[in-house]
Amino acid sequence: MTLVLDALPGLPEVRPGDDLGALLRGRLELGPGDVLAVAHKIVSKAEGRVRALADVEPGERARALAAEHDRDPRHVQAILDETAELLRADRGRLICRTRHGFVCANAGVDRSNTGDADLVLLPERPDASAAALRDALGVGAVVITDSWGRPWRQGQVEVAIGCAGLAPLVDLRTRPDRGGRALAATIIAVADEVAAAADLVRGKASGEPAVRVQGLANFVIEGTQVGAAALIRPPEDDLFR
Amino acid sequence: MTLVLDALPGLPEVRPGDDLGALLRGRLELGPGDVLAVAHKIVSKAEGRVRALADVEPGERARALAAEHDRDPRHVQAILDETAELLRADRGRLICRTRHGFVCANAGVDRSNTGDADLVLLPERPDASAAALRDALGVGAVVITDSWGRPWRQGQVEVAIGCAGLAPLVDLRTRPDRGGRALAATIIAVADEVAAAADLVRGKASGEPAVRVQGLANFVIEGTQVGAAALIRPPEDDLFR
Repeated sequence: MTLVLDALPGLPEVRPGDDLGALLRGRLELGPGDVLAVAHKIVSKAEGRVRALADVEPGERARALAAEHDRDPRHVQAILDETAELLRADRGRLICRTRHGFVCANAGVDRSNTGDADLVLLPERPDASAAALRDALGVGAVVITDSWGRPWRQGQVEVAIGCAGLAPLVDLRTRPDRGGRALAATIIAVADEVAAAADLVRGKASGEPAVRVQGLANFVIEGTQVGAAALIRPPEDDLFR
Repeated sequence: MTLVLDALPGLPEVRPGDDLGALLRGRLELGPGDVLAVAHKIVSKAEGRVRALADVEPGERARALAAEHDRDPRHVQAILDETAELLRADRGRLICRTRHGFVCANAGVDRSNTGDADLVLLPERPDASAAALRDALGVGAVVITDSWGRPWRQGQVEVAIGCAGLAPLVDLRTRPDRGGRALAATIIAVADEVAAAADLVRGKASGEPAVRVQGLANFVIEGTQVGAAALIRPPEDDLFR
């Protein structure tokens, strides 16, 4: 089995209201067995999920947190606006549970300095964004990604925050191993592994936010009833709270 | 930029004392720009890092934990033997800090039922194992991998527990983004992303524990002074303790 990943070349700067499908189409041949991994930033920008710092009015809590952690109070307010629960605040880092249920630094609110979009938020409904892009492009699946830090491990890895047409989790428990014994509790987070793989070919600073992945047709599924939301571990099942 | 991943076909069952380099050589062309991702299980087996359940004598703590969590007390004892600190024990799951400093379920001690190796441990010095294999095969880099669960996310992803010849962490902070602004705090855990990517082509149950990755020559480095140990976040810097 062979997996081949290629970055889509030469994407222009994406602006609110842009038709992302139209921007991506034609840059590389895309087929129904292909998976497209897309950095959320361009999805968010196309969907208008951006804010200008100057438009953000920090409230009392944002000002207090910003003072304590040496952050821009407007950025902190934008983070709080996306946050369902602030889990940790330590040495400038804010670890948030977003309204989607994702746990990540800064609720996924990134600084940017392109155009008026000082702040780029996560898409409102990333699984729906992935489904729309999949339909627009006629690919087998779309995975929308973001770079996250992890507990206990240094460095960031790219993870799936939205997905359509790809099995996000694949349960290998029923496949016997070579000794004939059923493999125990091996549920692979395929969508996260696709996100991570795509990150290796994407020049982070070079305007290649989309990566075509070929060779994963066996993980492509019909319908969009399962998305990256399935990758969120329910809080009550979380050993690490 | 293109990334191509191929599983090495047809590896036989690995036994203690086997020459892993000799077993892997010749199954697929391997060059000095290639990265080879290898599931730790075959490294551990070749190095004799296996135990027969029947040889494990559970102590008092193992018996108590096993009773409380409905586990085999001999397996629990083998886990404790590899554990520097037991961080959590909940609903049958033991989250351990291994003597290497890794935080993972069961201290990486997996059940297996091939030959006499009922239990497969992690390699004692995975970075050294990776370096030896890199030298034996003449590849650019070797990454030794394991499947781990994560806080807050469902499913397992493959991560790097050993690595030689590959930059495990790549700091993109100094690269300006398209607006000319330096990217903040973007340190990519490249070795973990390689591990995750390789997992997508590896038939878990089909005897394909090694995957050749082509197209990562820009991450290949000289020397072996940096390994996967660099991916361990120091406990005092960990927000999630």
